Amino acid sequence: MASRNSHDGNRRDLSSWVKLNVGGQYFLTTRMTLCKDENSFLCRLCNNDPDLPSDKDENGAYMIDRDPRYFRPILNFLRHSKLIIDKDIPLEGVLEEAEFFNMENLVQLTQRRIEARDSKAKKPSN
Amino acid sequence: MASRNSHDGNRRDLSSWVKLNVGGQYFLTTRMTLCKDENSFLCRLCNNDPDLPSDKDENGAYMIDRDPRYFRPILNFLRHSKLIIDKDIPLEGVLEEAEFFNMENLVQLTQRRIEARDSKAKKPSN
Amino acid sequence: MASRNSHDGNRRDLSSWVKLNVGGQYFLTTRMTLCKDENSFLCRLCNNDPDLPSDKDENGAYMIDRDPRYFRPILNFLRHSKLIIDKDIPLEGVLEEAEFFNMENLVQLTQRRIEARDSKAKKPSN
Amino acid sequence: MASRNSHDGNRRDLSSWVKLNVGGQYFLTTRMTLCKDENSFLCRLCNNDPDLPSDKDENGAYMIDRDPRYFRPILNFLRHSKLIIDKDIPLEGVLEEAEFFNMENLVQLTQRRIEARDSKAKKPSN
Amino acid sequence: MASRNSHDGNRRDLSSWVKLNVGGQYFLTTRMTLCKDENSFLCRLCNNDPDLPSDKDENGAYMIDRDPRYFRPILNFLRHSKLIIDKDIPLEGVLEEAEFFNMENLVQLTQRRIEARDSKAKKPSN
Repeated sequence: MASRNSHDGNRRDLSSWVKLNVGGQYFLTTRMTLCKDENSFLCRLCNNDPDLPSDKDENGAYMIDRDPRYFRPILNFLRHSKLIIDKDIPLEGVLEEAEFFNMENLVQLTQRRIEARDSKAKKPSN
Repeated sequence: MASRNSHDGNRRDLSSWVKLNVGGQYFLTTRMTLCKDENSFLCRLCNNDPDLPSDKDENGAYMIDRDPRYFRPILNFLRHSKLIIDKDIPLEGVLEEAEFFNMENLVQLTQRRIEARDSKAKKPSN
Repeated sequence: MASRNSHDGNRRDLSSWVKLNVGGQYFLTTRMTLCKDENSFLCRLCNNDPDLPSDKDENGAYMIDRDPRYFRPILNFLRHSKLIIDKDIPLEGVLEEAEFFNMENLVQLTQRRIEARDSKAKKPSN
Repeated sequence: MASRNSHDGNRRDLSSWVKLNVGGQYFLTTRMTLCKDENSFLCRLCNNDPDLPSDKDENGAYMIDRDPRYFRPILNFLRHSKLIIDKDIPLEGVLEEAEFFNMENLVQLTQRRIEARDSKAKKPSN
Repeated sequence: MASRNSHDGNRRDLSSWVKLNVGGQYFLTTRMTLCKDENSFLCRLCNNDPDLPSDKDENGAYMIDRDPRYFRPILNFLRHSKLIIDKDIPLEGVLEEAEFFNMENLVQLTQRRIEARDSKAKKPSN
């Protein structure tokens, strides 16, 4: 089972833990998770890309000026490659974050989900 | 992509980080975000407007006597210029904050959204 | 606009900041907000009414043995005189707090809202 | 009004404050509240019942291995003797806690509420 | 009543308290709870399985790179063997965690619940 590999394998090398301060709320994850999508801002952030200014707060967490509630599905997508959102979260909020973090796959997946939702809402019920 | 400019560009000068203590909950953002709307109370606050008394708490966060849950869409609007709210949040709560913070564009946008919702609720279904 | 007066005017005298520990969650507000309703327990609390025992925790917050989630609309009512509640919050929870804090106006407003909700639920749809 | 007695009367003797760490989240309440139901595990806990091992964490809070979200209505029931739950909370979650904490009245009240809900859901709409 | 045994019996030996830092949020539980399912990653984690690298944060909590919101029903299942989820939580989020933590019983229970939900949604209403 693929999901188990991430904690059984030779994890300690790849996955130094990373703290993020997203809009005031702390998230704990690993470098390995953040770099699942190498083009994302999150991967560049924790790799200390010299072209990307990154600041840490007093607890050693990378500071990100975004909404923590919409960041959760973003981080979960990096963890297990699925888009899972709570029923009270609008897809538009997730799309905005996926674009900000430059995650092309997630942008497309979210857009398709929005289209499916909207076409369903417009469809006459007969 | 415009949204990427905010973390690729010469950010460090404009965006010293700002902590806010809104009604007891901490928010992390940047001066650049807060000053997207120059007439807002939030811009004046972090620019230390001499006519506006501002106090900081023991963690260096500006103290604001408002509800943190309704503040989230306010801050997100400054981040990406869209009004995105969770399904369980009443628009009236957001309107109240937009007025308090003197954000004229957001006040108008929220009022239009309320009118659309109410006219939809009243419309007969045939 | 009345709502703006509260941060433009000569605020610093009236509004020393007040921390509340309501059932384990911290709230930040001002003495001015808490004393909007002079008969409320909250006004008496921060005025150190000698007939009302009040205790502070190790962070200087007044301790209150009530539910924080239902306290939010109570505090917001003192801030802007409107009863705004999230869709998943039952009005009965707010009523219970309004009675506890001895806020007569809010008790009546909440009771009317409950009656309106119940009469709407019972009304036949034709 | 009974609810007001709890903060007007000679409270300081009966109500030394109690901190609880329920599954990782802190709750603040009083010994008086926790002992409203003398047979409950919560009353025995804060009375240091010698037959009941109780541990405190580094902040002096009694540690309880249960879910904090379903604990809220439990504690509120002890505060005001009513079962009030948010719309997204399943009654089954509350029942499980009421049984764990040995609160017979609340167990029965929750069971009746579940039966009412289920019989309403099964009832044909004509 | 079985649920009461867990706090009446000779608990202190089996249940040294365990702190978990799941994706940035703290959970408090016991070794006894975590080892209800001996094959789960959680049991191996707190038993310091030599084949499983485990790291603790600065507060002595085991660090886990998963979503805290979907972890709640996982931990509750270990506490009382029932799958109880809030109405706004998608079953798919719980399934993903049950698989990650290698909890076979919960995986099957969640899959059956998803199938029941989907077959109900597809069923014509006549």
